[in-house]
Amino acid sequence: MTLYQATASAPVNIACIKYWGKRDTKLILPTNSSLSVTLDQDHLRSTTTSRADPSFERDRLWLNGKEEDIKAGGRTATCITEMKRLRKQEVEDKQPNEPKISEYSVHIASFNNFPTAAGLASSASGFAALVSSLAQLYHLPVSPSTLSLIARQGSGSACRSLFGGFVAWEMGSASDGSDSYAVEVAPQAHWPDLHALICVVSDDKKGTSSTSGMQRTVETSPLLQHRIKEVVPKRMKDISKAILDKDFDSFARITMADSNQFHAVALDTEPPIFYMNDVSKSIIALIVEYNRVSVANGGGYKAAYTYDAGPNAVIYAPKENIKEIIQLIVKYFPQHEGLFKDVFGLFGGADLNSQGGVVEGFNENVAKKFEVGAVKGLIHTRVGDSPRALGAEETLLGSNGLPKTLA
Amino acid sequence: MTLYQATASAPVNIACIKYWGKRDTKLILPTNSSLSVTLDQDHLRSTTTSRADPSFERDRLWLNGKEEDIKAGGRTATCITEMKRLRKQEVEDKQPNEPKISEYSVHIASFNNFPTAAGLASSASGFAALVSSLAQLYHLPVSPSTLSLIARQGSGSACRSLFGGFVAWEMGSASDGSDSYAVEVAPQAHWPDLHALICVVSDDKKGTSSTSGMQRTVETSPLLQHRIKEVVPKRMKDISKAILDKDFDSFARITMADSNQFHAVALDTEPPIFYMNDVSKSIIALIVEYNRVSVANGGGYKAAYTYDAGPNAVIYAPKENIKEIIQLIVKYFPQHEGLFKDVFGLFGGADLNSQGGVVEGFNENVAKKFEVGAVKGLIHTRVGDSPRALGAEETLLGSNGLPKTLA
Repeated sequence: MTLYQATASAPVNIACIKYWGKRDTKLILPTNSSLSVTLDQDHLRSTTTSRADPSFERDRLWLNGKEEDIKAGGRTATCITEMKRLRKQEVEDKQPNEPKISEYSVHIASFNNFPTAAGLASSASGFAALVSSLAQLYHLPVSPSTLSLIARQGSGSACRSLFGGFVAWEMGSASDGSDSYAVEVAPQAHWPDLHALICVVSDDKKGTSSTSGMQRTVETSPLLQHRIKEVVPKRMKDISKAILDKDFDSFARITMADSNQFHAVALDTEPPIFYMNDVSKSIIALIVEYNRVSVANGGGYKAAYTYDAGPNAVIYAPKENIKEIIQLIVKYFPQHEGLFKDVFGLFGGADLNSQGGVVEGFNENVAKKFEVGAVKGLIHTRVGDSPRALGAEETLLGSNGLPKTLA
Repeated sequence: MTLYQATASAPVNIACIKYWGKRDTKLILPTNSSLSVTLDQDHLRSTTTSRADPSFERDRLWLNGKEEDIKAGGRTATCITEMKRLRKQEVEDKQPNEPKISEYSVHIASFNNFPTAAGLASSASGFAALVSSLAQLYHLPVSPSTLSLIARQGSGSACRSLFGGFVAWEMGSASDGSDSYAVEVAPQAHWPDLHALICVVSDDKKGTSSTSGMQRTVETSPLLQHRIKEVVPKRMKDISKAILDKDFDSFARITMADSNQFHAVALDTEPPIFYMNDVSKSIIALIVEYNRVSVANGGGYKAAYTYDAGPNAVIYAPKENIKEIIQLIVKYFPQHEGLFKDVFGLFGGADLNSQGGVVEGFNENVAKKFEVGAVKGLIHTRVGDSPRALGAEETLLGSNGLPKTLA
């Protein structure tokens, strides 16, 4: 008997032009276009196995081994239904000999290789992996942009994780969402030396969820409309050009300005929404000073911070600057020993806390030194590729159709 | 021989619609109108004595007993020159018998009754007291609005301290600044039960000065222009109406929204400017929750926070709510014992830290409890009156023409 099963992994993406606000909350249609960098799945990924079987009684989903309820009409159900519809329409109806597996229920197991506690949004990579594994299971002859239309309905930013490299989510204008999808601006291979350092910041309190937060901004911020109409369209053009030109200085300026403006409209919300804390702000002060020194010496910007709906910093930089940046961060934010994975071999096994330091001319008073744990982890990664089809040996489902850890 | 001398005091004001951005940095002409509440001089004031004497060789100024350099063409020099010009034009030229004291040099001594460390901007009350004492010395037959034109050139927000009660600074449009002055929206007596609680917040690092910060915002924030053109004009009208109607709910909503928006455009600046810290944000969370409980019980807003270019909170509220608000703040921000001046006798001598508590239905998890000193002081005051002419016994200058503490 044939086993209808496929396993895929999908990457995390971090936006440079931020998505904040929906014009349609059910279809997840945004109020502005956005643009992100896909990060390397070698370091951060969601892996998902989907299996279709006539013996399955209903669609079921496990995240990191724990079963999640698939609510009727909810986001996960929508994605599964849409993928089954595509299977029927694009494969079974056109090629009557293909098995009618769109009629079977599916079991889906998904696993994130990064801890939830890291505060990295896993919904983007998670829904991209879900959609990718089902596309593979169903042998769908469709483009990543088409798949992005479906992933978008799981989690808006998930649509951008269907591509590697540099990805735009075009907001579109159709009321059915048919033109609101992701497109590749440039592939990973265009600018592989763009690296990223994620600073995982400890936080006392739970922040506002992005889903509810962005709608409060849409409803109450007088500044958001100006951002949508006047600011973002120009920034989308400008940063796309900066990427195509591999012009890091422009890329950095736009990325930082747009992170700031996203947090500005969050603050212009009633009641105001704060995602960055004093640690986040100190990291900004360090990057601003690091760039100032470079510019004062006749150079350009050497690093760009960006913050999503939480206190974590993501610092983009050309790979040759990352060692200096880690040394800078560690000087102000000493790390728990042995946690850092030096995947690019920058420090030759040395204890990270012994490596702290600043570049010449750096004003050390722009921030104070924090206690160990204020930045509770550093993850070094780089621009990465699109979702991957994995071999049968990578399956997360056992022969009994349940996640392997539960089998 | 006649002693030509006068002493005046002037109040602090705290804006509800914020001034942020100059269209002319020399004349101090703002990019938008603003509106403030004048605070009570019984609690917070600058006191200034000005003396004109033919024996004085040059204009001299002492702040809190320390001599300050009066730079030629600087802000203080401009104010003194303008006041002498008015003396000549309005008094001496019209009434030839009046003494020509505009030709004498002046000695000026000024004293703030609140510590500089409190982080309260003293330039507004300081320049208002300077101009008021000179106006008194020179017997100028001019209106407070005319004096506000001169105080404005010392420090923009000083123009609003020429009036008591509720004061608008009309931005004007003339390039010489002749229509950019303060006007009274309503006097102190209109709404005397509006009180204020100042929470003095401890801060690690020195913030960006408002003078340089606001010009960086003018130059780099894409959102500021929208605020100037579209948002502030409507808010000026709406909050003026709220004040005239003594409609605290509307007053509070607009005040908090405008504080948030000022900090939003500061954050939208390159590099971004942060004035609020984690303590400031926690006070916001407390006030938001305190209002939420009131609204959930069918009431309106009971308190309004506002933040200037620093981490201190000013909380406006009807006087009947102030005791509850102090109890709320003290529960999360315990105070150093004995510091609080209970000028309105709310606690009958009890230790403040024993009085902490929240209203019924309050979600205590919206903030964490901080260490003693995170909020390093509380000042309870209320809407106040316009600058006061003080008697000769209040002089700050000794018979030798030097400040009394130096005499």
